[in-house]
Amino acid sequence: MIILKLGGSVITKKEANEPTTDYNNLNRISAEIASSSFDKLIIVHGAGSYGHPFAKEYEIGKPIKDKEDFNSKKRGFSTTQSWVKKLNTIVCDSLRENGVLAVSIQPSSFILTRNKRIYSCDLDVIRKYLDMGFVPVIYGDVVVDLNEEIKVCVLSGDQIITYFGKNLNTERVLLGSDVDGIYTKDPKKYEDAELMKIVTSCEDMTTEGSINVDVTGGMKGKLLELIELAELGVESEIINAGKEGLIKKALNHQRVIGTIIKKKNEV
Amino acid sequence: MIILKLGGSVITKKEANEPTTDYNNLNRISAEIASSSFDKLIIVHGAGSYGHPFAKEYEIGKPIKDKEDFNSKKRGFSTTQSWVKKLNTIVCDSLRENGVLAVSIQPSSFILTRNKRIYSCDLDVIRKYLDMGFVPVIYGDVVVDLNEEIKVCVLSGDQIITYFGKNLNTERVLLGSDVDGIYTKDPKKYEDAELMKIVTSCEDMTTEGSINVDVTGGMKGKLLELIELAELGVESEIINAGKEGLIKKALNHQRVIGTIIKKKNEV
Repeated sequence: MIILKLGGSVITKKEANEPTTDYNNLNRISAEIASSSFDKLIIVHGAGSYGHPFAKEYEIGKPIKDKEDFNSKKRGFSTTQSWVKKLNTIVCDSLRENGVLAVSIQPSSFILTRNKRIYSCDLDVIRKYLDMGFVPVIYGDVVVDLNEEIKVCVLSGDQIITYFGKNLNTERVLLGSDVDGIYTKDPKKYEDAELMKIVTSCEDMTTEGSINVDVTGGMKGKLLELIELAELGVESEIINAGKEGLIKKALNHQRVIGTIIKKKNEV
Repeated sequence: MIILKLGGSVITKKEANEPTTDYNNLNRISAEIASSSFDKLIIVHGAGSYGHPFAKEYEIGKPIKDKEDFNSKKRGFSTTQSWVKKLNTIVCDSLRENGVLAVSIQPSSFILTRNKRIYSCDLDVIRKYLDMGFVPVIYGDVVVDLNEEIKVCVLSGDQIITYFGKNLNTERVLLGSDVDGIYTKDPKKYEDAELMKIVTSCEDMTTEGSINVDVTGGMKGKLLELIELAELGVESEIINAGKEGLIKKALNHQRVIGTIIKKKNEV
């Protein structure tokens, strides 16, 4: 089984003032997936401009100060849940119109976190979809948290990937990003930044390696999830989903430019 | 806790050739709910023109004939799931814009049926939402079925109501329909049809009492679910959600025109 992440910065216009889909990228990627060969596939997508602005505005996941703050966070939860669901509908429709048997999976319907980490997540239904040949499409969402101080939080697509990678029979994880992979320094600032072909720990990166910061933790947070997965034997690969053909090649097991995250002693 | 059903024939234009929302009804009902007083509330809505035409076209829930038929049903599943989710988004948005803390719950993410009856459905997340003061909004959907002959089926809002009524601490069930209640005969055909104030079993009805037939079983199917619930001690009330003010009155415990379904020996 392959897990394919579609970054929010790839399928949405992340810097837009309001939720905006990048249909060029999305429809091209959908067509690439439809024309690839795979046995079982799960797609996990980020929220981009459909999620982060709302989660940030309402401070979802921060301690609840008082009743008024809780009410505001609840309105924010309801609003954020609706927008990320709209993006998921757009992604699923694009996939299906290109011939992929997409099935939407809504995290906030069944996943509980505790201190922002997945606490319960029944995978039975997802296993059944995979067995039937469906492609489950799950996404970064807001969820209920068992910590009474926060009560709700943001569940990132990256954490979902780690959880699925651990608990489903996962062969590979492909992360479609808006950059070529992980650099030694921020390539937008430093001319001598080099693409790292292999990463085995966070120490491999300098702090300047953090390419962008988002509400779910930026590149460092993503990397920590992937290193955790690598330690358990599931390798992942960051590739540029913004460049035509790379997703298709990677799904078809062709080597493309990118960063591989693997276990230290396996280098 | 109150369970309020919004019939697909109330919030959509059921006879439309394509999915069409009845915004007049929906927005009015959302405002009525927002201005009512309730402790805990779950809203269950039907699919109307967003679900039935697709479920029927692809024969979701009928035995799978061959591989080709299975592929067609899978495409139908994916299509139907998407449309009913769109309606759910519209309903949740209308509720939230009117001030109701709506949270969407997608059945196909976590519910499994066996021979078209709910087999597993973890209610933990829904209980948490209710405790926090959210209003979960769940709906008729397509789901995975454990019977290998059908593999997928339609899960009606009415079956969800029965399951929730049994397994959550339910005080009342209110069914917002497009008719005043259950009649002795079809009121559209027979002038002497009388509204039944109380129903305790299916024998109370003549076969002509079946007002309309839809893919999830029509009025008789709905009634069987409600009688099952009444036997367990949860009374339900069919009222006309198409008429202004009735939902609000009923939520506020005022008596309105309609049919009460209760246990036989309690009449």
